[in-house]
Amino acid sequence: MRQTQLFTKTSKDNPADELAKNAQLLIRAGYIHKEMAGVYSILPLGYRVMEKIIGIVKEEMNAIGGIQMKTSALQSKDVWEKTNRWSDDVVDNWFKTTLKNGTEVGLSFTNEEAYSNIVKNFVSSYKDLPLYPYDFKTIFRNETRSKSGIMRGREFYWKALYSFSADEAEHNVFYEKAKEAYTNVYRRVGLGDFTYMTFASGGTFSKYSHEFQTVSEAGEDLIYIDEAKNIAINKEVLTDEVLAELGIDRATLVEKKAIEVGNIFSLGSKFSEPFDLTYKNAEGTDVPVFMGSYGIGVTRLMGTIVEVLSDEKGIVWPESVAPFKVHLVALGDTVFEKAEVIYSELLKHNIEVLFDDRVGLSAGEKFADSDLLGMPHRIVVSERSLAQGGVEYKKRDSSESTVLSTEALITMLNA
Amino acid sequence: MRQTQLFTKTSKDNPADELAKNAQLLIRAGYIHKEMAGVYSILPLGYRVMEKIIGIVKEEMNAIGGIQMKTSALQSKDVWEKTNRWSDDVVDNWFKTTLKNGTEVGLSFTNEEAYSNIVKNFVSSYKDLPLYPYDFKTIFRNETRSKSGIMRGREFYWKALYSFSADEAEHNVFYEKAKEAYTNVYRRVGLGDFTYMTFASGGTFSKYSHEFQTVSEAGEDLIYIDEAKNIAINKEVLTDEVLAELGIDRATLVEKKAIEVGNIFSLGSKFSEPFDLTYKNAEGTDVPVFMGSYGIGVTRLMGTIVEVLSDEKGIVWPESVAPFKVHLVALGDTVFEKAEVIYSELLKHNIEVLFDDRVGLSAGEKFADSDLLGMPHRIVVSERSLAQGGVEYKKRDSSESTVLSTEALITMLNA
Repeated sequence: MRQTQLFTKTSKDNPADELAKNAQLLIRAGYIHKEMAGVYSILPLGYRVMEKIIGIVKEEMNAIGGIQMKTSALQSKDVWEKTNRWSDDVVDNWFKTTLKNGTEVGLSFTNEEAYSNIVKNFVSSYKDLPLYPYDFKTIFRNETRSKSGIMRGREFYWKALYSFSADEAEHNVFYEKAKEAYTNVYRRVGLGDFTYMTFASGGTFSKYSHEFQTVSEAGEDLIYIDEAKNIAINKEVLTDEVLAELGIDRATLVEKKAIEVGNIFSLGSKFSEPFDLTYKNAEGTDVPVFMGSYGIGVTRLMGTIVEVLSDEKGIVWPESVAPFKVHLVALGDTVFEKAEVIYSELLKHNIEVLFDDRVGLSAGEKFADSDLLGMPHRIVVSERSLAQGGVEYKKRDSSESTVLSTEALITMLNA
Repeated sequence: MRQTQLFTKTSKDNPADELAKNAQLLIRAGYIHKEMAGVYSILPLGYRVMEKIIGIVKEEMNAIGGIQMKTSALQSKDVWEKTNRWSDDVVDNWFKTTLKNGTEVGLSFTNEEAYSNIVKNFVSSYKDLPLYPYDFKTIFRNETRSKSGIMRGREFYWKALYSFSADEAEHNVFYEKAKEAYTNVYRRVGLGDFTYMTFASGGTFSKYSHEFQTVSEAGEDLIYIDEAKNIAINKEVLTDEVLAELGIDRATLVEKKAIEVGNIFSLGSKFSEPFDLTYKNAEGTDVPVFMGSYGIGVTRLMGTIVEVLSDEKGIVWPESVAPFKVHLVALGDTVFEKAEVIYSELLKHNIEVLFDDRVGLSAGEKFADSDLLGMPHRIVVSERSLAQGGVEYKKRDSSESTVLSTEALITMLNA
């Protein structure tokens, strides 16, 4: 894409009303627009990042049997009263609104009830199980304060999958697959080295849930990491009993602040019993379905990548989620013809390129923008590079640059 | 996909609380789930249809320069007050809700203000224009009554593109391209033969807007069609003056009920002036941006396809939007091994197949389900077909069937 066709522009100044680094950088770089505290519109560059994260999550969910659908945002009181989660005294972050006839309705803040209420129409026999529906959805949470940019929005975009299994044994098989799928997601979006599967508090049906926590000073959680075992324990469950059970020595643990980028939960029959979501087993007995929940915040993940992988100059996108793989920068009005040829060549080889074809800007301005925007590969076409027989190539996270021919460049980028 | 892994099931009975054919069929076939009047969750088969419609619309918008983003659902009072559209006395279908601090916020019922408010941050010179951002988004409208299934929801999914041009001449060039793109969409989703570009009332800046109207008894509009010219006039603008202007003879017009499946609108500066969305022209003068709006309801389009293309047995999906191209039906428990081989062959040739691998159902039950679900191509594997040397092939919209070898079948499907 040509930068002259991209309507967003960068800004040198941090927005005065943002404390979070992710929001500061994403707003300055033109990836998001703040509508109000905790509510952002996603601009074209940001949307490309979102689409890539969604693509990765979708592949991993489909690989473990997930089946995509789309639940409504508006939710009925009677559905949520079944689990006693309608009242604002019980759930303090509902957004509610009213139909013309005076009926109060809620905006989804989570999805367990919506799914149980749908799935109960289709499950009657053990032959109908297991099943793993999921959706990507805008979620609304009426947070009292919202200061963490797109990491904790009043409105955000997530993926939630719910598993419906015949019993705990069947559930556990899927739960282990989900752990792997989640681990794959964080590795693929570039957070693998910083993200730990973390033991957290469970519920009625399971001692633990599992959070995926990415180490960052911007995190709201405290976790205790066992580097050798590559796992962590959330502060909330850090007791001698838990350490003994997990076979972990307290002395090996390192305390870190971390961002919760996903969680998986065994729910048992907590959300199936209230809906009479039961099935007949092989003996003809009615048994409640055993459920699990598996969430990932797409916009939070995008914010976390910015928090963890940016530097003093701007964002550093991993290739897998970058809006474009390459930033092609034309420096000096005399090289545009040659830059156009290289742009066409890259497109012809299916390489995603943002082409800085803006005229009249200094090298300093273009480099500053390129660093702020954060594409993983930068190619500069200048009189100097052409004199040296090619283009100047640099990785965003490296200070070394080399001069390459277009052919060598394409071979390298497609390697 | 195996039908045994698809958790939804069909139902013989029409839902008692639905009057609209689209809702009746889509609920019976397990494509959608009713949450409340005018609010539906989209089940896996329905989601596959939605994804295909979205894919087609996206391709057509990108082809005319559209650039995708994602605006927020929650909207600020101050933004909508600028155009005097915040008050419930002016806009009677807002859903509103309240932040913890008492601030009232609205849920998007349309998007002009949101876009003007964003775009004004990035436009200053004529060099920044034109631009064509769009998004797919859940839209909320507090309808008093909601009886048309997914054709008029309180919550629905749409695409809206807004054009920002330097002047009316530049706007008109894009407007003509949008007409073509819209015509392409309806042709590609299988509604081309029933859909007319229809002159409707304009506004301050343009005498006409253009609706795309699909002829159907379920429609809420009355249009007057000139078959020879392949255009129509909405009843609301059918005057002698308009007929004269368009060169249409009243005697040639045929009155039909129709469903509005899209509209395009010249907005002029109606939504740019209130936001000071101006640009400096080549002479350095501040000029308001000339806008246009271009909407398509994705869920309405899905409902319209069902209204127009179903028959007494069920839905008849056009191939372009069908959840699966082929319904492979195994009849009788002795043929499953052979059916599995054919299923694998079809998948290997990248043909999307729903495989009815359910055991213990009669041929009548399986055929009824297949007709209700509406995949365009049906393949039956039965002892009889195998004895005749192959599989029985039938189109959903034909009563003729033929016996083909697997090889001949694949060649035909991939032709």
